[in-house]
Amino acid sequence: MTDTPGTHRTEPAHPTGNDLHLDLPATGGRRAALMAALREAIRSGRLAPGTRLPPYRSLAADLGLARNTAAEAYAELVAEGWLTARQGSGTTVAERAESAPPARSRRPSARPGPVHDLRQGQPDAASFPRGAWLAAARRALTAAPNEAFGPGDPQGRRELRTVLADYLARARGVRTDPDRIVICSGFAHGLRLLFGGTTAVLPPAETGPLAVESYGLAFHRGLLAAAGVATVPLPLDENGAQVGELPQHRDVRTVLLTPAHQFPTGGPLHAGRRAAVVDWARGRGGLVLEDDYDGEFRYDRQPVGAVQGLDPERVVYLGTVSKSLSPALRLGWMVLPDHLVDRVLAAKGQREGWASALDQLTLAEFIDSGGYDRHVRRMRRRYRDRRDQLVGALAAAAPHIEVSGIAAGLHAVLRLEPGTERPVLAAAAQRGLALDGLADYRHPGIGADAMPITDGLVVGYATPPEHAYPAALAALCAALPPPG
Amino acid sequence: MTDTPGTHRTEPAHPTGNDLHLDLPATGGRRAALMAALREAIRSGRLAPGTRLPPYRSLAADLGLARNTAAEAYAELVAEGWLTARQGSGTTVAERAESAPPARSRRPSARPGPVHDLRQGQPDAASFPRGAWLAAARRALTAAPNEAFGPGDPQGRRELRTVLADYLARARGVRTDPDRIVICSGFAHGLRLLFGGTTAVLPPAETGPLAVESYGLAFHRGLLAAAGVATVPLPLDENGAQVGELPQHRDVRTVLLTPAHQFPTGGPLHAGRRAAVVDWARGRGGLVLEDDYDGEFRYDRQPVGAVQGLDPERVVYLGTVSKSLSPALRLGWMVLPDHLVDRVLAAKGQREGWASALDQLTLAEFIDSGGYDRHVRRMRRRYRDRRDQLVGALAAAAPHIEVSGIAAGLHAVLRLEPGTERPVLAAAAQRGLALDGLADYRHPGIGADAMPITDGLVVGYATPPEHAYPAALAALCAALPPPG
Repeated sequence: MTDTPGTHRTEPAHPTGNDLHLDLPATGGRRAALMAALREAIRSGRLAPGTRLPPYRSLAADLGLARNTAAEAYAELVAEGWLTARQGSGTTVAERAESAPPARSRRPSARPGPVHDLRQGQPDAASFPRGAWLAAARRALTAAPNEAFGPGDPQGRRELRTVLADYLARARGVRTDPDRIVICSGFAHGLRLLFGGTTAVLPPAETGPLAVESYGLAFHRGLLAAAGVATVPLPLDENGAQVGELPQHRDVRTVLLTPAHQFPTGGPLHAGRRAAVVDWARGRGGLVLEDDYDGEFRYDRQPVGAVQGLDPERVVYLGTVSKSLSPALRLGWMVLPDHLVDRVLAAKGQREGWASALDQLTLAEFIDSGGYDRHVRRMRRRYRDRRDQLVGALAAAAPHIEVSGIAAGLHAVLRLEPGTERPVLAAAAQRGLALDGLADYRHPGIGADAMPITDGLVVGYATPPEHAYPAALAALCAALPPPG
Repeated sequence: MTDTPGTHRTEPAHPTGNDLHLDLPATGGRRAALMAALREAIRSGRLAPGTRLPPYRSLAADLGLARNTAAEAYAELVAEGWLTARQGSGTTVAERAESAPPARSRRPSARPGPVHDLRQGQPDAASFPRGAWLAAARRALTAAPNEAFGPGDPQGRRELRTVLADYLARARGVRTDPDRIVICSGFAHGLRLLFGGTTAVLPPAETGPLAVESYGLAFHRGLLAAAGVATVPLPLDENGAQVGELPQHRDVRTVLLTPAHQFPTGGPLHAGRRAAVVDWARGRGGLVLEDDYDGEFRYDRQPVGAVQGLDPERVVYLGTVSKSLSPALRLGWMVLPDHLVDRVLAAKGQREGWASALDQLTLAEFIDSGGYDRHVRRMRRRYRDRRDQLVGALAAAAPHIEVSGIAAGLHAVLRLEPGTERPVLAAAAQRGLALDGLADYRHPGIGADAMPITDGLVVGYATPPEHAYPAALAALCAALPPPG
């Protein structure tokens, strides 16, 4: 060990550079490495608070560093608060720099998923069109103007809004222009823009309660409750939501519906009711919120067009790519009545929930080049085949189980005998099969008389990758109760 | 005009297929085209409510369509509510289907930008590394597991969190592990997770007021006010925020700081104050929120490391790619004390503000492959050159103007004589030059005695593309007042 020619021999001894046991790489960023090693020595407690460090010249000599390197490292660590430099007493470890060791994480690295997954709500993640998407990204990012990489517009990229106005007209019967479309990060974001926070477009205190279908996603009910929105459930029958009951709720001015494919029971809203709800909104000065979550997927005839087309000034249309392409993109859109556009943009001025401009440009190119249509057609065939396999498997293994909601979408509903939903779900879980019971979707405010089905299963047939689907179906059939 | 062999001759006459003046393409999706043409005829009023349509067989014959095509189009339009089919009276335009014509948009297509743009806050959008980003996207999306295209994890992609933990340790002195990082869509999103809504991690009613620097972004103050958070301004001096005043505010437990580079005045927080604020947080049971918005950009020596490294359990570290890469990505991160992780994840369970998983994977690959470091180095050189040009131009044209905050970041502050800020901004605007005055950044709660500078300009030198920068500087120099 070399003795260090320090300048403060009368002060308590300080460790030499070698005593510090600093582990430095032979080449590369030596200053950064020295800083990291010193920080680590302080964190670990090897260099206790108050410890005097060797003068930088000694340290440099001991470690074979340039003097500048050591001097700069000390200066940086002083600036960062790890070390203290006092005129006449050299450099010491700062008194307060001791701290608790970093807490170990208690979070499991990843929860194991179920063996079989028939939960609804997800497209087959294995089918994401990686190659076509990347090709569209290359074309879009190469052609984009520089301002596309700037802070952007709360309304979303014009390229995407222009393409969407055309696509939604063609595929969904939506009537709009690009200026009435606002890009958002999904349905939940749309709900928050409409109802949440101090910038809400439809503040709950002014707008009153929201009518909803008596079956729906608990997650959405939770978002609404969190925003302070009271919900009034509309009973369902075989023609969809009983919108004729709306006038009885005199404080209701807004209704949230899934007209193309009631979620989760599965039927379209009857034509007469589509007209009636728009008429109600006109007469009431109210709004219809149209959640068109999987409108592209209808198997036995053309998709039912959007209610929005009946009156663009009375319907807020909400759509996303979460079912048609991937929920990983966090990309959706609102088609707004003219009088709401500026208010939604003001709410979106908070800069949150702006979807990635790069994904927006890529989606615009993907739609415009026909890639999106091709993908939807391919997935429609695939999901139709899966639906047919489901129906076939049930007909063979459990012909006593009634299946409904199979004309469209990514899920079906299996009717169970009253009182058997929970035991069937338990039997499924025992087989490693994840799926939901209908109870989770029921609005807590409806009575048993308003339930078209008391017990049932919601089977998402899009979720598993292709190779895993037959085994999932077999597990489902095995978990179903025998004929009563 | 051919006569149509209708089946209801005793009813009022209906138009023939040719009378409808439907414009159909000769080939392609004939049913969709017929539906679109009928919808348009109804919307435009050419087919009034109650109008009887020709029977589908006649229509098909008149238009040269297959009968099925016409029958299906009618059925679809009935399902959509445009038409009504009544047994014995044929198909009529629905009574309620008339609606207001779509409102014309009143929004201007795009506001023209300023001629010269020296507003702070944006990196040079023209410098986005398109090629390197696309290459990283290709590698990342090709290698990604299928579940990457599924619904995802509120915490964000593990690939990105793992790479960030390493990068932030190396480049910013942050001490963390991937399990304590939460990906978000930017600083505003981080603030909302912490303070906003019913899921707030630090509900304002419990947490009390938030201490902030007396100069900062008005947009952030607005976000906090909207979330119901009262703010207490800390005066600034040449050593940064006077955190020694924190104990005087006995209801304050949380402080928001920009320690690496005070925004916008430009200096780093003094080492002693870095230590002091962490000590205060420990003693108070409080938190330091560290907004590390441009920590990568320091020009004359190494960047000052994050305060977070001094005590990861008392500091919430917030960063984004908005300055280093592009705000268009809407991508940021929070490095959290262990005890806050689960609460932030619960708030993020609302599924909003989840950044695109595809961008997350691409950024992970971009950092891991060294592309991010290369880009930051390139931009550091470029912005340093611009800063030098700014300083040089001012020294030549306006040597009486004091410049500060030039050691780091993407902007500088020019001191003006008291009372001259507004006239100088007006002179700049007349030259087509956009930039901000210091007044916009001042907390409304501070008195004149706590203002280190009363009048000044905030000059963002990163914003313009390279070719436009010299002209912007010339416009700035021309707008500055002559020596007093």
